Amino acid sequence: MKVGIIMGSLSDYPTVERAEKILAGFGVDYETRIISAHRTPSVAEEFASGAESDGIEVIIAAAGKAAHLAGVIASYTPLPVIGLPVKSSTLDGLDSLLSVVQMPNGVPVATVAIGGAENAALLAVQILSVKYAELRSAMKVYKESMEREVMKVDSEFRRAGGS
Amino acid sequence: MKVGIIMGSLSDYPTVERAEKILAGFGVDYETRIISAHRTPSVAEEFASGAESDGIEVIIAAAGKAAHLAGVIASYTPLPVIGLPVKSSTLDGLDSLLSVVQMPNGVPVATVAIGGAENAALLAVQILSVKYAELRSAMKVYKESMEREVMKVDSEFRRAGGS
Amino acid sequence: MKVGIIMGSLSDYPTVERAEKILAGFGVDYETRIISAHRTPSVAEEFASGAESDGIEVIIAAAGKAAHLAGVIASYTPLPVIGLPVKSSTLDGLDSLLSVVQMPNGVPVATVAIGGAENAALLAVQILSVKYAELRSAMKVYKESMEREVMKVDSEFRRAGGS
Amino acid sequence: MKVGIIMGSLSDYPTVERAEKILAGFGVDYETRIISAHRTPSVAEEFASGAESDGIEVIIAAAGKAAHLAGVIASYTPLPVIGLPVKSSTLDGLDSLLSVVQMPNGVPVATVAIGGAENAALLAVQILSVKYAELRSAMKVYKESMEREVMKVDSEFRRAGGS
Amino acid sequence: MKVGIIMGSLSDYPTVERAEKILAGFGVDYETRIISAHRTPSVAEEFASGAESDGIEVIIAAAGKAAHLAGVIASYTPLPVIGLPVKSSTLDGLDSLLSVVQMPNGVPVATVAIGGAENAALLAVQILSVKYAELRSAMKVYKESMEREVMKVDSEFRRAGGS
Amino acid sequence: MKVGIIMGSLSDYPTVERAEKILAGFGVDYETRIISAHRTPSVAEEFASGAESDGIEVIIAAAGKAAHLAGVIASYTPLPVIGLPVKSSTLDGLDSLLSVVQMPNGVPVATVAIGGAENAALLAVQILSVKYAELRSAMKVYKESMEREVMKVDSEFRRAGGS
Amino acid sequence: MKVGIIMGSLSDYPTVERAEKILAGFGVDYETRIISAHRTPSVAEEFASGAESDGIEVIIAAAGKAAHLAGVIASYTPLPVIGLPVKSSTLDGLDSLLSVVQMPNGVPVATVAIGGAENAALLAVQILSVKYAELRSAMKVYKESMEREVMKVDSEFRRAGGS
Amino acid sequence: MKVGIIMGSLSDYPTVERAEKILAGFGVDYETRIISAHRTPSVAEEFASGAESDGIEVIIAAAGKAAHLAGVIASYTPLPVIGLPVKSSTLDGLDSLLSVVQMPNGVPVATVAIGGAENAALLAVQILSVKYAELRSAMKVYKESMEREVMKVDSEFRRAGGS
Repeated sequence: MKVGIIMGSLSDYPTVERAEKILAGFGVDYETRIISAHRTPSVAEEFASGAESDGIEVIIAAAGKAAHLAGVIASYTPLPVIGLPVKSSTLDGLDSLLSVVQMPNGVPVATVAIGGAENAALLAVQILSVKYAELRSAMKVYKESMEREVMKVDSEFRRAGGS
Repeated sequence: MKVGIIMGSLSDYPTVERAEKILAGFGVDYETRIISAHRTPSVAEEFASGAESDGIEVIIAAAGKAAHLAGVIASYTPLPVIGLPVKSSTLDGLDSLLSVVQMPNGVPVATVAIGGAENAALLAVQILSVKYAELRSAMKVYKESMEREVMKVDSEFRRAGGS
Repeated sequence: MKVGIIMGSLSDYPTVERAEKILAGFGVDYETRIISAHRTPSVAEEFASGAESDGIEVIIAAAGKAAHLAGVIASYTPLPVIGLPVKSSTLDGLDSLLSVVQMPNGVPVATVAIGGAENAALLAVQILSVKYAELRSAMKVYKESMEREVMKVDSEFRRAGGS
Repeated sequence: MKVGIIMGSLSDYPTVERAEKILAGFGVDYETRIISAHRTPSVAEEFASGAESDGIEVIIAAAGKAAHLAGVIASYTPLPVIGLPVKSSTLDGLDSLLSVVQMPNGVPVATVAIGGAENAALLAVQILSVKYAELRSAMKVYKESMEREVMKVDSEFRRAGGS
Repeated sequence: MKVGIIMGSLSDYPTVERAEKILAGFGVDYETRIISAHRTPSVAEEFASGAESDGIEVIIAAAGKAAHLAGVIASYTPLPVIGLPVKSSTLDGLDSLLSVVQMPNGVPVATVAIGGAENAALLAVQILSVKYAELRSAMKVYKESMEREVMKVDSEFRRAGGS
Repeated sequence: MKVGIIMGSLSDYPTVERAEKILAGFGVDYETRIISAHRTPSVAEEFASGAESDGIEVIIAAAGKAAHLAGVIASYTPLPVIGLPVKSSTLDGLDSLLSVVQMPNGVPVATVAIGGAENAALLAVQILSVKYAELRSAMKVYKESMEREVMKVDSEFRRAGGS
Repeated sequence: MKVGIIMGSLSDYPTVERAEKILAGFGVDYETRIISAHRTPSVAEEFASGAESDGIEVIIAAAGKAAHLAGVIASYTPLPVIGLPVKSSTLDGLDSLLSVVQMPNGVPVATVAIGGAENAALLAVQILSVKYAELRSAMKVYKESMEREVMKVDSEFRRAGGS
Repeated sequence: MKVGIIMGSLSDYPTVERAEKILAGFGVDYETRIISAHRTPSVAEEFASGAESDGIEVIIAAAGKAAHLAGVIASYTPLPVIGLPVKSSTLDGLDSLLSVVQMPNGVPVATVAIGGAENAALLAVQILSVKYAELRSAMKVYKESMEREVMKVDSEFRRAGGS
C-alpha cells in the first residue's frame, strides 16, 4: 500500500511534511514529488497515468492559488485523489479551496480543509483501510488515542483549577 | 460492497438521488437514510457507530447551512466519510461548504463541490475500487465513455457548423 | 446558577478566559471543560445530556474552523447554548462564524461575534437574569458603569485637547 | 412571560410570522411591533427602555441590510436580545448577518441564522425556560417530537423503497 | 464651519487623527468625541440631536465590527453623516464596511473606504465647500498640488532611471 | 441648486429614476445623463470638468460591475460625488460596491448602499442643505413624516391584531 | 489570423456565442471546440500543443466552477490564453473567477469578467492588432462607434425629457 | 517593441519591479511611470491617448483598492491593457481584483492574479510574440527552462530522500 504525494512547489513542503508524518505513523509507504500542473504538465500527466501501475493506491495533491493540480491529476487516473488546498499570500486560501473543491461532474477531488495536511493523510489511511484491515484497526486505535488525549488534557486542565 | 447515504432532510433528496443513480450504474449497493445531526443526534451516533458492522464501507453525508452531519458521522466511525454540501436558501452554499470542509485535525471529511452529488458517488466508487478490482475497471470504462461522450458532442457541434 | 463553558481545544483558552473573567465579575459560577465535538463525541454527548441535571443553566461553546461544537451540544440539551466562533488560521473566522450561526430549524445556537468571549459571558448573564433578579440589577450596574467609563474616556480625551 | 418582537419594516413580517407561530405553540405571549432603528429611533429607544417594566423578558429583533435594530435595542435594555438577520435584495444576507452578529464588547446580541425565525423563537423559549419549568418540559417534548418526526420521515422513506 | 468627529472607541484615534490633520490643513474647525452607539446610546442621541444647533455642519463617524455608530447618528440628525469603517481584528473590515454602507432607505450614510480617514475629511471639506467658496478654492488647490506631487514623484522616478 | 445625475448605461435607469423622484419631491433640480467611464471617457471628463461652472453642486454617479464612473468623475471635479453601486448579473453587487467605495486617499466618493438610489438622492439633499436652509427644513419634515409613517404602519398592524 | 475558442461544456455555448459574434464582426476567423480539462485531458493537451502549428494565434477558454481549462491550456502552449469565467449554479461565479485568474507564477491567463464573452473577443482582437494593422484600425472604429452609440442614447434620453 | 508600465503609486514599485525583471530577461523594452487614475487623471488620459504613437504596444497597469487605473487607461487606447491588481491593506486584494477584472462590455482588461507581476510581464511577452517571432521562441525556451527547473528541484528533493 502506497500513497503518492505531490505538491505544486517546494514551498508547500512544510505543509506536506505533516501529512508524511501521519502516514509514517500508520506504517503507510509514500512517495513525495514536486510536480506543477502548470509548469510541468507533461510530468503531471505521466505521473497520473502511471500511478496505478506504479503501485500507488491513493494520491494526495497539495497546491495553492488557482490550485489545479489535484483536478489535473484526477483527470488522468481512476485512483481516488485527495486535494489539499494550500493558503497563499492573498485571499487567505479561499482561491485554493474553491479551485480544488468545485470540480465539475465526472471528476471528483476529495477535498480537505485549507492547510489540512494531517487530515489529507488520515483520509488516505481511511481509504486504504477499506482494503487493508490492519489500517482499519490502526485507525480505530488512533481515534481512541486521540479521544484519550483530549480527555487527558481536559482532566489536567480541570485538576489545575483551569476554571 | 455497500455505501451508506444519509441526508439531513428529505428536501435534500433531489440532490442525493443523483448520487444514487451513479452508484446504481456501477452496481454498488447503497442504503439511504434521513438522519439529522441536530434533530436526531442519537440516531446519527447509532448509525455511524454501527455502520462498519452493518457492512457499510463508505458513507456519503449530504447537508446544508451549518452542515455538521458529515463531521458528526465522521467522529463516530473509522470509515471514510464523503461530505456533500447542499446549497441552502441563503449564502449560495458557502456556509454549507465551509461547515463541511474546514474540519479540524484528526477527523477528515472528503468534501466534494456544492451540490456535487454525482461526484460524491464517483468518489465513493473510486474509494471502493481500492479494494474491488471490478470497480476499478468500471471506473476506467466510465472515464473513457465520459471522454468519448464529450468528444462526440464536440464532433457533432463542429459538424453542425457550431462555429 | 452555573454556566458550563466548553472549548474544542486548549488553544482556545486565551479567548475563553476572557469569558470566565466576566462571569467571575458577576459572581456567576462556571465550569470549563475541553471537549471536542469530533475527537471526543461521546464526552460531548454525555456532557450535553447531563448538563441540566448537573445544575448547569446556560452553556457557552467555543470552537473554530468547521465549528460544530455548539450545534452538537445544542442537539443533546434543552438548555440555551451560546456559540462563540473562534478565529482560525485561515479565512479569518468566516468559516467558524457560518458553522456556528447557520443552524437549521429546530436547534438554535445563540451566536456572538467572532472571538467575542466577553459578549458570550454577558449574554449568559442576561439569560440567567431572566430568572435571577440580582443578576438583572448587576447587569444594569454593568451597563451604567460601561457608559460612565466611555464618558470618562471621552471627557479626558477632550480635556487633554484630544482634538 | 412575554416576548417582544420587533421588525424593521412590515416587509419582514412573513419571516417574523414564523417566529410568532412557534411562540404561540409553546403558549408564550408575544407582542409584535414595527420599529425602525433608523426611521423611528426615538420609538426604538422608548420601546427598549420600557421593555423590562412592560413585562417583556426576551426581545427578538428582525432586520435586514445594515441591520442595526437588534444592537440599538440591546444598547438600551438589560434584557437578552435575539437578533434575526433578514435576507435583503443584495449580498444574500451577508450584510444583515455581519451587522447583527459582530457586536463590539459590552453589548451582546444572540444571533441566529439568516432568516432563522423559528430558531429565534425557540431560543426565546429556551431562555425563558431557565426560569419557567413548564417551558423546559415543553422544550424537551418539542425536541423529542422533532426527533420522532425525522425518524418517521426516515422510516416512511425507507419503507417506500426510497433507496 | 465645524465638523463633528466621533469614534466608537479611543482605539480608533490613530485612524481618526489622520482625518483631523486634513481638516486642520483646510482650516476647518472640528471637535472630536468618543461616543459609542452601544455603550453610550443616550450620549449618541444627545450629540446627534444637538449637533445642528451646536454649529456642526457635517459629521464624521468612525467605528468597526457591527459599526452602527454612523447609522445611529444619522437617524437623529438632518446633517450629512460620513461613515468611516474601521478595520477590526477579524474579517478584515468587511463587517465594518457592510454595517456602515448598507443603510436602508430613508437614512443615508456617506461611506468612504475601510480606514479611509483622509477621504472622510476631504469629503467633509467638499460638502462644506458647497456653501463656503473659500473651501472650494482650497479644494482645487489641494487637487492640483496632489496632482503636481504625483507628477513630481513620477518625474524623479524616471530621472533616477527608475525603469 | 442642481444635482447632476449620471449613469453608466440606460439599463441603470430604473434604479436611477427612484433617485430622481426623491429630488423632485424636494424641489431640487437635476439633470440626468448617460455617460460611461469606459465607453465615453472624454464625455465623462468634459462633464466632470464643466460641472461646477454648469451650476451643478452635487453629482450622483450610478454604475455596476467594475464601477469606475464615480471615481473617474471625482478625479476631475472638486464637487462632492455620490457613488451609487448598481447590482450586476454576477457577484450580487459586491464588485460594484468595492469598486465604488474603496477609493484611494485623495479622491473620496460618498458611497451609499448597493441599489440605494433613494439614499443617494437624500444624501444629495443633505449636502445641499448645508447651504440651502429651506432644504434643511424640508429634510426635517421628511424625517418626521418618515417617522410618522412607520409609526402609523406599526399602529395599524397592532390594531389589526397583527400579533 | 485565427482565434481558437474552447469551452468546457456545450452548456457554455450561449455565453461563448457572444464572443463569436464579436470576432465575426471584426472579420477574425475562429474555431470553436468543446474540450474539457477534466473529462478530455488528452484532447486538451493535444489541442493546446498543436494550436500554434494549426495557425491559431490567440486562445479563448471558457469554463465554470473549478475552471481549470484556461490554465491547463496555457500550460501546454506559448500562445496568449484568455480565460473567460462562466457563472455556475452556486457561488455566483466567484469560484470560476478565482480558479481562472489566480494562476501561479510562470503561466499567465488573461482573465476577463465573469461571463464577459464580448470582452474576451475584444481582447483577442486587441492582441491580434499588435500584429495586424487592419485590426488596430478596426478597433479604433469600434471604440469610436461605441462612444457615438452611448452619446446617441444619452442624447435621445435627454431629448425625450428623460430627466 | 516596448511595454508601457504604469503604477498608481510609488508604493506599488516592489511589485512592479518583478515585472520589469521578466521583461528585461526577454530583452523587451519597457518604460515605467507613476500615474494615478484619480490624482492625475489628465496625465493618465494623455499617456493612454499617446501610447500607441509613442511606440508602446502593450500596457501593464498596476493598482490597488478601487483599482480603476487599468480600466481608465483601456478606455483611451486601442492597445491591449494588462491589469495587475495590487493587494492593499484591507480585504486582501479582493477589492483590487474585482475593480480590475469586472470590466463592462466594450473595454476589456486582461487581468492577472493579485500581485502577479511576473505573470503580467509574461502575458505581455506572449502578446508581443504574436508579432515578434523571436519572442515566441524565447517564450518556448522560458517554458522549457521553467519545466526543467521544477524537474530538477523534484529530482534533488527525491535524491535528498525528501520523502
